[in-house]
Formats: sequence, structure tokens, C-alpha cells
Amino acid sequence: MNVYAIFHKPESNYAYASSNDTLTVILRVAANDNPNKVEILYNNKYDFTKKRYASDMRRISSDGVFAYYRADITLADARFAYIFRITEKEKTYYFSEEGLSEEYDFDLAYYTFFQFPFINGADVMPLVAWTKEAVFYQIFVDRFARGDFEKDDRYINTAWDGNIDRYSFTGGDLDGISVKLSYLRDMGITALYLTPIFSSDSNHKYNVKNYLQVDAQFGDVEKLKRLLAAAHKENIRVIVDCVFNHCDRQHEFFKDAEAKGRNSKYYDWFFIDGDSPDVKRGNYSHFADCKYMPKWNTNSDEVRNYLTGIALEYLRLGFDGLRLDVADEVSHEMWRQLRRAVKKEFPEALIIGEIWHENEHWLRGDQLDGVMNYKLQKILADYFGSRPEQAENAANRMNRLLLANTERANAMALNFLDNHDTPRFLRLTGGNQDKLLCALCAAVMFPGMPCVFYGTELPIDGAGDPDCRKPFDWTFRTQNEDYRENFKKILGLKKQIALCGVGAEISAENGVLRIARSTETESVTAYFNTSGSVKSVPLCGEVLFALHYQNNRILNDGAVVVKNKKQ
Amino acid sequence: MNVYAIFHKPESNYAYASSNDTLTVILRVAANDNPNKVEILYNNKYDFTKKRYASDMRRISSDGVFAYYRADITLADARFAYIFRITEKEKTYYFSEEGLSEEYDFDLAYYTFFQFPFINGADVMPLVAWTKEAVFYQIFVDRFARGDFEKDDRYINTAWDGNIDRYSFTGGDLDGISVKLSYLRDMGITALYLTPIFSSDSNHKYNVKNYLQVDAQFGDVEKLKRLLAAAHKENIRVIVDCVFNHCDRQHEFFKDAEAKGRNSKYYDWFFIDGDSPDVKRGNYSHFADCKYMPKWNTNSDEVRNYLTGIALEYLRLGFDGLRLDVADEVSHEMWRQLRRAVKKEFPEALIIGEIWHENEHWLRGDQLDGVMNYKLQKILADYFGSRPEQAENAANRMNRLLLANTERANAMALNFLDNHDTPRFLRLTGGNQDKLLCALCAAVMFPGMPCVFYGTELPIDGAGDPDCRKPFDWTFRTQNEDYRENFKKILGLKKQIALCGVGAEISAENGVLRIARSTETESVTAYFNTSGSVKSVPLCGEVLFALHYQNNRILNDGAVVVKNKKQ
Repeated sequence: MNVYAIFHKPESNYAYASSNDTLTVILRVAANDNPNKVEILYNNKYDFTKKRYASDMRRISSDGVFAYYRADITLADARFAYIFRITEKEKTYYFSEEGLSEEYDFDLAYYTFFQFPFINGADVMPLVAWTKEAVFYQIFVDRFARGDFEKDDRYINTAWDGNIDRYSFTGGDLDGISVKLSYLRDMGITALYLTPIFSSDSNHKYNVKNYLQVDAQFGDVEKLKRLLAAAHKENIRVIVDCVFNHCDRQHEFFKDAEAKGRNSKYYDWFFIDGDSPDVKRGNYSHFADCKYMPKWNTNSDEVRNYLTGIALEYLRLGFDGLRLDVADEVSHEMWRQLRRAVKKEFPEALIIGEIWHENEHWLRGDQLDGVMNYKLQKILADYFGSRPEQAENAANRMNRLLLANTERANAMALNFLDNHDTPRFLRLTGGNQDKLLCALCAAVMFPGMPCVFYGTELPIDGAGDPDCRKPFDWTFRTQNEDYRENFKKILGLKKQIALCGVGAEISAENGVLRIARSTETESVTAYFNTSGSVKSVPLCGEVLFALHYQNNRILNDGAVVVKNKKQ
Repeated sequence: MNVYAIFHKPESNYAYASSNDTLTVILRVAANDNPNKVEILYNNKYDFTKKRYASDMRRISSDGVFAYYRADITLADARFAYIFRITEKEKTYYFSEEGLSEEYDFDLAYYTFFQFPFINGADVMPLVAWTKEAVFYQIFVDRFARGDFEKDDRYINTAWDGNIDRYSFTGGDLDGISVKLSYLRDMGITALYLTPIFSSDSNHKYNVKNYLQVDAQFGDVEKLKRLLAAAHKENIRVIVDCVFNHCDRQHEFFKDAEAKGRNSKYYDWFFIDGDSPDVKRGNYSHFADCKYMPKWNTNSDEVRNYLTGIALEYLRLGFDGLRLDVADEVSHEMWRQLRRAVKKEFPEALIIGEIWHENEHWLRGDQLDGVMNYKLQKILADYFGSRPEQAENAANRMNRLLLANTERANAMALNFLDNHDTPRFLRLTGGNQDKLLCALCAAVMFPGMPCVFYGTELPIDGAGDPDCRKPFDWTFRTQNEDYRENFKKILGLKKQIALCGVGAEISAENGVLRIARSTETESVTAYFNTSGSVKSVPLCGEVLFALHYQNNRILNDGAVVVKNKKQ
């Protein structure tokens, strides 16, 4: 056994409650260790020294460096004490809190076993049920569709089919979305993620002046309510972008602080260095280098109460969840307070945060449900896109990603290919639509909720901001029908996968990437080939989707998804 | 570089904010890797791709398997992006979120760097200032001293010098503690930890009938207030044992549930399996196998509000902190709520939890300040006690323990040798008082707050419960003066150490265990010898404490503590 590789930690992604009596336990060892048997020995912690159950642990995956073993253990009295027993080449090892050893004194176990002291329901992260079937569509509101042609549209400075820049306004609005709901439903969309819609003088509206006023360019609160009601009628849920990291310099509280300095009751609501904020100097914390976006001080009780109140107002309007912008720069206390308030009144409201990096600390059940899955996006972009890599490497990275969080947090991640902050995925594939379809299929197959950026169904091409934010060309709809047909079929796979468990089996064989999801009796397996050559994949079963696949052979940039009875 | 050993994780014990602009960063590598240089490359996350600072990381310790490198990095705008650069044998390695590599593309760093996105003050765990000098003394109230000779003492069933059993009542009370405050002060005690004092029919009172009524055996609320006032006058702080995991079957809410079953408003306050609790069958969750101690359902808002209210009442009476019994079996949500309420009204109140095992999840700043340091106790018991081991092994285990949590959590751990749930440490040393003194000295030197179980200053001997809970024999005070003199000197070391930083350097050389604490200019270093033979320790500096030490030689079971100017 490789003593450097072996790892376990209770109350983490390595040991978490999956129900009120079941603990999911993961043990990590070196990938090239090949133990004959890995077992978990466990019992109620008060009985462990006297008597223990033994369960085999199953090797679930490898990330190239490490391999992972898993067991799900159940006790009626859920006070778990456990250690691991590993048999390798006729030697027996024990792994406890004190490390790896060849002997273990069960009489002294009370000092050295791992424990999960008690499963308290309040600490078990529930799966928001509707996320299981969710297929998301992200709408950048100014660019998706215009529905209101009566509004004062003097703000529009760029024709719908004109060339946009960072300051373009093209006229998209809430009514436009309402009009397109049946189009979205027919494509298989079951949830929308709207970029911000509240009062703001930019086209993206990530600098909010007034959190409770729908921006007049997009409509008003009545139009919003109509959109939400119409969406719900189509069984489409809607989550809203909450920009709680910062606001706009024209927000009335910041203006008050500007005017009154330390005498303002809002002075402490921001991070101001000096007597008063000075927008020219930017002597206050703000988002990135954007002085016009002063950062909220979410260490303040008052700020937390204010922003939590806004989140509740959004949900009371009828939104089904929140997408939290720049979630990682906001205090953990903010998210804890927001979650408590939100889940109390709206247990099924989804809370998604924008975090590009390591995120386990936010996903332990007290803060977010899931994140924007940037880590998956990077793997897909590398594998299918601009930095092609071996299927083996992609599989390793995907497995590593899956093990970095609990299964429920994984299940509630938004698996996107691109968004308003990245180039269009089509650009990353060098214009290759097949690779784009393959990546979409992988995003659907991977645990989590696929999220399509508006227009990917055409597909829209584009470099980074602003080029990725082009208006949706509704005349395109009659072209490229094969692509769109495949696109829709891929989204339709989510219904099949929704029946499966939240986990996935991911591997690479012969240069082909494989992602499998399964129920107790059936499995849905996708194979992807970007190797540059034709690959054989001897399959039987029902083909749910195929791209460049024939007679058990996948051509380059092809994929196949098959449904099988489990053996 | 050993790819299996290298490890880092942001927002954990490997990367945490130590102030509003400073991040403490730890990198783990294999102990037998010997890189020429380990650096952290960092900057504000929005500038990282363009430009970075480099800081050398210092090898701070090893636990035998792994070595740990540390840097404390500061940015005015505390949004940290960083990666590690390691030079070994003319090769350069990079370690990022994507793992170990020989090349690193800084242009794409935005996807792969480690980040600590922003230091929010609300998430930084403060050090409770008074803990720096704290020397605790744990009092099992029935056994320490009797002060009230007017009380109805018909409950006393065992003479003070009689033989106790698990059901003995010997008469100790709050007045007894009040009377002995100057004795405790003179010994160097600055804080008391009282086992439970509220209404309960047992001698230990861990089964509470009424949380707001001082048990009549011990006194009343006026006597309690007098004790707290008198203690504060002597600069002695007092923390109280809060038994919030369970109560007594005679608690009025449990009785209500017994009487009314599902119709009781308290039915959901417990974990009842069936229509009503039946004490004979024990069809409800309880502490261990004690049916008379029904477990609170701290998943319930109402229960959390109730218990939080009690904690606040205790602090309003004048207690300086809380010791939370069986903290690990109570919901995390309970401790989050309790901490928020407590720290808001009493920022300097200390919150200590009883957790015997892995505890990082409780010590991230949102729940507890520190724990009962069972892990240290086990190391000391093994090294100085019944399972003697090599100094090297003890040093490795101590270093591993120090790295398992943040420095502040370590600083607020209660370093005890024994308590009411363990045998007396003297029993573990086979009656060897020198070893007991050495262990006490190590508990003082180790980061955290030493906590002496009543009577260790005599010392009292005893096996586990009830033998470890013998009444304090006040006639012993005239005997064993050398021991008691040394005991007091050792406690006095805490004042010197309080000036030092919260970290420690721990190592073993030539079979001698070394624990060093330091300021910027001075260090206090302790050496312990339990090797069985005489050891040379060439020292210069001021000897603060010596036991079996002469002319740079430590005899077996000896120790020396020296103060030095740093070079």
C-alpha cells in the first residue's frame, strides 16, 4: 500500500450522509495499488469495540493518480464508527484516524476509529427534486427576443442584426421570452436561467441600481409575473441572477454614502477606505477593476438582512431559484443566512453559485446547492475544443471532479458549455459542430443539469464578450436542420438519465471516452470519439442517440448513446 | 516529487485567513522529498495572469510521512490567486488545482490557479483574547469542596473520605469553590471549567431536568452569581458545561411527550419511534445506552431556539464561556445558531466542544472555537503513560495534530491530561509522578490551553469512572511539597508562552522530545526525556523549569524548559 496516497476524512466529500441513516464513505488509495479486498468495518460507535459489521468497498473510479473505493453503510442508530481493512498480497492493513498500520487494537478503537458521530437531518443536503429532469437554457435578456414593441425604445442603439459592441442595446425583453416559451418547451427546455433583469443602465445589468424594480427596458413587474406564470404553465422553471456581491454606483445606498460619508447609515454597508467613497479614485472595494460596481460588505448583519430580503422577494414573485453572481467573494455567513431563509419558505428553491474553482466549502449543505460547473466546462473545452487531449486524461479529470464533492452537490451543478463570460463553444471547436454536439451530449450525460446558452441550438458562433452575446437570429431557424435535430435529441436524453442514480461511471478505453449512468436494472452509456481515427465500440442495446456511428464503429467526432439492461 | 503526497486545499486547514488581509497557506509534500526551494506565486486574482509575487515557503514540520511548508501572504485587496513552484534537483514543478506539472501556462491560469476568493471578516475566526494566558482547572462539583454546611444535606450518602461508587453524593458545592478561589489563584489557575450544575438527580448532573435552576445540592442562583463575581475579582474566568445533546427523562418537555404522545407540542423535540416515548423500551434516541437521557432533536428550529436561549442565559449570569457536552452528535445547525447568538452578545465568550475525533468541520469559524483535545491526550498518554513510544513518534503525531486545524482553533483547544471520563493520568503512568509532571509540562507547552482536572496537584490517583472522581483530600496539602512546587512552576510557564505566537515547533532529536514556542525575538523550548537513559541536551539560556536536569543532561523522566534569544 502506498502510504502517501491513502486518504479519508469524515464530514467531507469522503464521508457524508446521503439520508438519515445512510453514510456514503469513500476511501482513496494509489491508482496502481491493487488490493485484493477493501472493506469497511463499522458499527454504532458505542458498540464498535465489541462487534463490527464488514462491508466490501467497490472500486468506483480512478483519476490516474488515485483510485477511489466506496461503500454506503446503514445503521438504524446512525452513530457510525468505522475503520478500513485492506488486503493486498496476503498482507492485511488497517487504516484508522491514526493512519495505516498492519495491526489494529480493537480494544483501544475508541481513540482511533473514524467516526461520523450522528446523522442529523438538518445537516443532510436534500436534492431539489425538480433538478433531476432539469434542462436549463440561459437567456441574456437583451439579446434573446423582443416581445414588446410598444415600449419606449429610444435606448436601443444597435439593430437586432447589427454589429454589437460592449455598449449595445438591442431590445430583447421579458415579453420576448414569453413569446418563445413554446419554442423552448418544444426543444426540451424545462428551466430558464435569466441574466439580471433589475434596474441597471448596462445591457447585462450586473450593476444593479434597484433590486426590486424590473428594468424598464425589459418590462415591469406585471410582465415578469406573466412570464413566470406562463413558464410554469409550460412546466418550465425560472431562476434569476442575483448580483449580491456588488451593486451599481447609482444604488441609492451607495449614493447616500457618497453624499454623507461616515454620517451615512450605509457607510458600513460598503468597504470604504477614507471618509467617503470617491468614484474617481475608487477608494472602496469593487468588483474586479470596475469602480462603478461597489462591493457590498456582507460581513454586516444589515447588508445580509437586506440582500436576503431581496432574494425572498424574488422567490415570492414566482422565481424557482437563484443564481448567485460572484458567489465566492461574498461572505459564507451571507450564504448561510440566505439559505436558511430561502429553504424555510421555499424548500424546493434552487441555489446555484458562480464559483470557478475549488468549491467544496460552499457545498456542504449550509450554503449553496450547486455551482456553475466551470471545472467541467474546462475539461469539455480541452477535450472537445481547442486543446484536444486524450480520452484517458479527460476521464481522469472527470473522475477527479466527481469525487471533489458530494453526489448531491454534483447533481445540482449547472453543466454549461459556454456563457456570457466565455467564448461560444463553437469557437473553441474551431467551428466544428459535431464536436459541439458531442460536448453537449457529455454535459447532459455528466451528473448535474445541462445548461444551454441561448442560440447554441442554431448554433451561434462568437469570441468572448461582447461577441458571445450576439442577438439570436430567428431567421436561422430554417437552416442547419440536422444539427438542430441532433441538438434536440441530445437534450431529450436527460429524461432517460433522470431515472438513473446521481452518480456516473466514467472511463476511457481504446481512446474512447465513456460515461455511464444507471438504475438498478438498466444503464445509459455514452461513448465519444475525438481520437482522429475510427474506433470500434461493440455494443448491443437500444441506441438512443448516434452521431457518425454505424455498425459498432464511431467515426472521429462521433458519439453514441446506448441503453442496456444491466447484467 | 512524490505525486501521491502533494496536497493543498483552499478554505481548509491548508489555507485560511489569519486576518482581513493575510492568508496562511500550507503545502504538504512527502517527508522524504527534499525540494531545494518551495515558493508560492500569488497575486490578486484579477491580476494573476499578468504579474505575480513569489514568496519562499518555510518547511515547518514533518509528521514522518509528510512534510509541511508554510507561507503567510498579504494583499491589500485580499482576493488571492496562487500556485506553488517547487524546485528539486534542477527540475521545476508547478502545483495548481489541476495537479502537479512540469510546465504551467500562466495565460490560462484563470482556470487552474488555487484561489481564496476574498477574505470576508465575518468568516475569519477571531482568537478569544483571554485564552492566550488561560490555565484551566476542571471541577467536578460534588467532589471538589463543600462550602455550605447549612444546606439540607440528607442527599449525601458517602462521607468525604469514604469509598465512592457511581451513585455517591459527597457534598461538594458552589460555595466550596468560592472558598477555594484564592487557593486556585495562588496555584496559577486563571479559568475554571465546571461540570454541570443544573437541576439533576445524579452526582455528575449530565442528565439535566431543568436547565435554568441551579441544583439545590450545589446551591442556588444567588450563590452562583456570588461565585462568578468572586472568581472575576480574582481574574478567574468560569465556563460551564452545557449538556445540549440530551436531557433527563424527568425534563418537563420529555414528560409532556410521555403523557401526551403525538399530541404533545414537544413530541418532535425528541427522536421518538412510535406514538409516545416509553422509558422501559427506550423507543427514542438517547445518549449512548442511557435510556434516562433522551436525545434532543436539534434539527428542530424550536429546540435550537430553546437551547440557544439557555446558553445566552448562562452567559448573562456571568459565565465566560460554554463547554458543549457530546458536541459531535448535535446538529451543525445547532452550533451555527448558538455561535451566532452567543458571539453577537458576548464576543469574548469561549465555545469549547467535546469531540474525541476528527473535528475540522466544527472548527471553521462558524461553530466552535475549540475542542477538548482528546487527540493530544492520547499522544501524551502513550508517550508518558501506559504505552511508551519513541519521542520521534510522539513528535510526528503532535505535528500531524497541529496541521489538522487552523492555528486559532489549536490555540483554543483544552489540553487536558485526564478528566471525569478517563482514568487519572497518574494511573496511566503507573504512579510515576515525574512522568505526570512531564506530561503536564507538554500540555502547557503545546498550543492550546492547559486544563488540569481537580486534584492533579496532589496528585489524586484513580482508574476510570467512578474512581477518577474521588473527593479532593484537603488534608493532603501538606504532603508531597516538591511535586506541588513543580506543578505550580509548570503552570507558571503559560505566562511566558502567552507572549509567543500560537504556533509551535515540535521535533525529536536523539530520543528527546522538543516543543518550542517563540516570539520574534525569543523562544521558550521544552525538552522531555522518557527514553530510559540519560540524554545530553547542550543548552544555554535561562532555565525556566527543570526536573531531573543537571549540567546539560536530562535524566530519564526529566524535562527542562529554557528561554533563549533567537538567533
